[in-house]
Amino acid sequence: MRISINANRCEPSPMRKFHSLAVAAEKKGRKIYHLNIGQPDLPTPQAFYDAVRNFHQRTLAYEASPGMPVLIDAVRKYYANLGVELSPEDVLITTGGSEALHLTCLSILDPYTEVIIPEPYYPNYTTFVHSAGGVIRALPTTPEDGYRYASRDRIESLITKNTRAILITNPGNPTGVVLNEEEMRMIADVAKKYGLYLICDEVYREFCYDEIHGVPTMARFHDIDENLVIVDSVSKRFSACGARVGLVVTKNKELQQALLKFCQSRLAVATMDQVGAAALYSVDQDFYRRSKEEYRRRRDTVVERLRKMPGVKVQEPMGAFYVMASLPVDDADRFQHWLLEEFEDEGETVMFAPGAPFYETPGKGINEVRIAYVLQQQDLERAMALLGKAIDRYRAEKM
Amino acid sequence: MRISINANRCEPSPMRKFHSLAVAAEKKGRKIYHLNIGQPDLPTPQAFYDAVRNFHQRTLAYEASPGMPVLIDAVRKYYANLGVELSPEDVLITTGGSEALHLTCLSILDPYTEVIIPEPYYPNYTTFVHSAGGVIRALPTTPEDGYRYASRDRIESLITKNTRAILITNPGNPTGVVLNEEEMRMIADVAKKYGLYLICDEVYREFCYDEIHGVPTMARFHDIDENLVIVDSVSKRFSACGARVGLVVTKNKELQQALLKFCQSRLAVATMDQVGAAALYSVDQDFYRRSKEEYRRRRDTVVERLRKMPGVKVQEPMGAFYVMASLPVDDADRFQHWLLEEFEDEGETVMFAPGAPFYETPGKGINEVRIAYVLQQQDLERAMALLGKAIDRYRAEKM
Repeated sequence: MRISINANRCEPSPMRKFHSLAVAAEKKGRKIYHLNIGQPDLPTPQAFYDAVRNFHQRTLAYEASPGMPVLIDAVRKYYANLGVELSPEDVLITTGGSEALHLTCLSILDPYTEVIIPEPYYPNYTTFVHSAGGVIRALPTTPEDGYRYASRDRIESLITKNTRAILITNPGNPTGVVLNEEEMRMIADVAKKYGLYLICDEVYREFCYDEIHGVPTMARFHDIDENLVIVDSVSKRFSACGARVGLVVTKNKELQQALLKFCQSRLAVATMDQVGAAALYSVDQDFYRRSKEEYRRRRDTVVERLRKMPGVKVQEPMGAFYVMASLPVDDADRFQHWLLEEFEDEGETVMFAPGAPFYETPGKGINEVRIAYVLQQQDLERAMALLGKAIDRYRAEKM
Repeated sequence: MRISINANRCEPSPMRKFHSLAVAAEKKGRKIYHLNIGQPDLPTPQAFYDAVRNFHQRTLAYEASPGMPVLIDAVRKYYANLGVELSPEDVLITTGGSEALHLTCLSILDPYTEVIIPEPYYPNYTTFVHSAGGVIRALPTTPEDGYRYASRDRIESLITKNTRAILITNPGNPTGVVLNEEEMRMIADVAKKYGLYLICDEVYREFCYDEIHGVPTMARFHDIDENLVIVDSVSKRFSACGARVGLVVTKNKELQQALLKFCQSRLAVATMDQVGAAALYSVDQDFYRRSKEEYRRRRDTVVERLRKMPGVKVQEPMGAFYVMASLPVDDADRFQHWLLEEFEDEGETVMFAPGAPFYETPGKGINEVRIAYVLQQQDLERAMALLGKAIDRYRAEKM
């Protein structure tokens, strides 16, 4: 009874592997502040629930494999507002951005082919790449450089005959790095020159805190239509993670066909969630502005509080809702265990995602953590206070 | 820009590849009777919609990767009624039975390893096996034998050093074959003797038309707990295909861990669909009986009508809601094209799934079709009448 090589190459999610410890802590009566998962806490627009409640189908049936036309149309209108014209067949609705990434990897990677990904990166990329037999070639960055990766030389130096794709998250998870126009153009040029797929995970597109970035998308570079794969989702944009509705945008016809085969094999995305997701796209522009302002305030709070903690190193993120921070602890994974199993302050503790699994390079990120600033102001302040106290106590008791 | 070898090894779904032709025919005003997809038309129990409408979460959040406890509990109670005791960790909720199969293949198959599957089989198995780099070793059956496959000699003769699993659908799709207790025991013994995974797709479990079969499940054979992987779903049982809620049941701890890594990478199954699915399990026992009686009547209708068509060969299926039939046409794929592009009778036509993709062996199934008897009596009679007329006209005009 063997487990596959590729399954063995995958790791438990660092955001989720503490789930059972967290459940145990909660059973003991602990209140946990969750900074470990990029689970926004803003309310899901009522339009979602209204659409779902008004939906009735005598028999809840399979929808078309590429997605419901009403949702594909809503997505096309949304992209048109970004200045990107899409045909219906350029959009494939998926079960979250996760499935978009998973099916893209299965469609373009063979065993031992390589994907260049700036590190630190979203750890589930490992599972998507490995499940297709692929290999990650990490493009290293440093906290001192603010985790910036858009260096032509450094990217080109990683390209081999086996390279199939460059995968970037923009705005970045976990780093909050946002590419400027020039950097986006350079990466597009590299993908074009070497005939590589450019997979852009843009699920945090609306969350750029520096106005010069606007709402960035690679999809505006039409000269790389053959190379480009945009991964998108309603999860972060509309605080609707539990809907599990994402999408792939590509104009590459061969890739569309390959993706469609996988989409057909899993039949369809859940009907009601697509109905609700289509309604989400009807929110007014003010919704985006308000969400962004809220997260900007939270970012400011978290960064300010982190900077006051002795020994903590942090750079201000420009987008998404994460910050990587280096903590004055020996091992962030061990620290997280301790936070759940031993620490408490007035019955409360805190969770984050330990940094090492965000790196491919061994030894990196061991004392880093990713903090998702997805709690409201008051909770966020309390969570930061808990983190500060916990670091002090851990250093006194365990180091 | 290359497409992966494994994506190229997959084929479009024979149930879905005519989708665009069907849409075009409908645009011309054609009414199509869909016998191509196993999409039940019985009403989804109201409990599903009630639960969804009563559900409100300020922020629609990610659920736990293994599934919502309320749904896992409902599934465990359902299995307890079948005489199978499950721990919570024995159940992983998936996005449909499709994801259950896909993740199982990724967890146990390496490139060039083999899965034994009786043919004809559900064509999407090909995509699941191929996406993991695996190879299907088809166990041939014949229409004359009623597509029965439970022959120890024939199964053992296909086992090699590379065999990892036996995959069966019981009751069978597309054949309607139902294993008896002795046959189930024999296959369990073979899996145990050779240390193979036994993947049992039991999503049609409730649809057995011969009372001696009861509600069959391999899960009662506890001596093969290490080998066994049960694939299950609410889609067929409760006419809720559009919910996309399925599950894997296994007591193999190593496999649980491997599956969980993939489940974590895709974060969670859609929240509302899980809430609705949990409510589905509250239907009374009479629901199952009534559904079965309805499909039994339909089976009788379809088989009776098919038997009256000259040149059509058919065996009475014992379970699920499909029948394989051999038609007096040169090529069922060409016939289906013609049905959508040229044929009409009073503005109506009919769709089924051409048989060849249900076979791994080249040349088999070319004049066979799979008919899903998922329409109400009156529509089913009309669809059968259309099929009869179409065969006559096609033979006169095209052969």
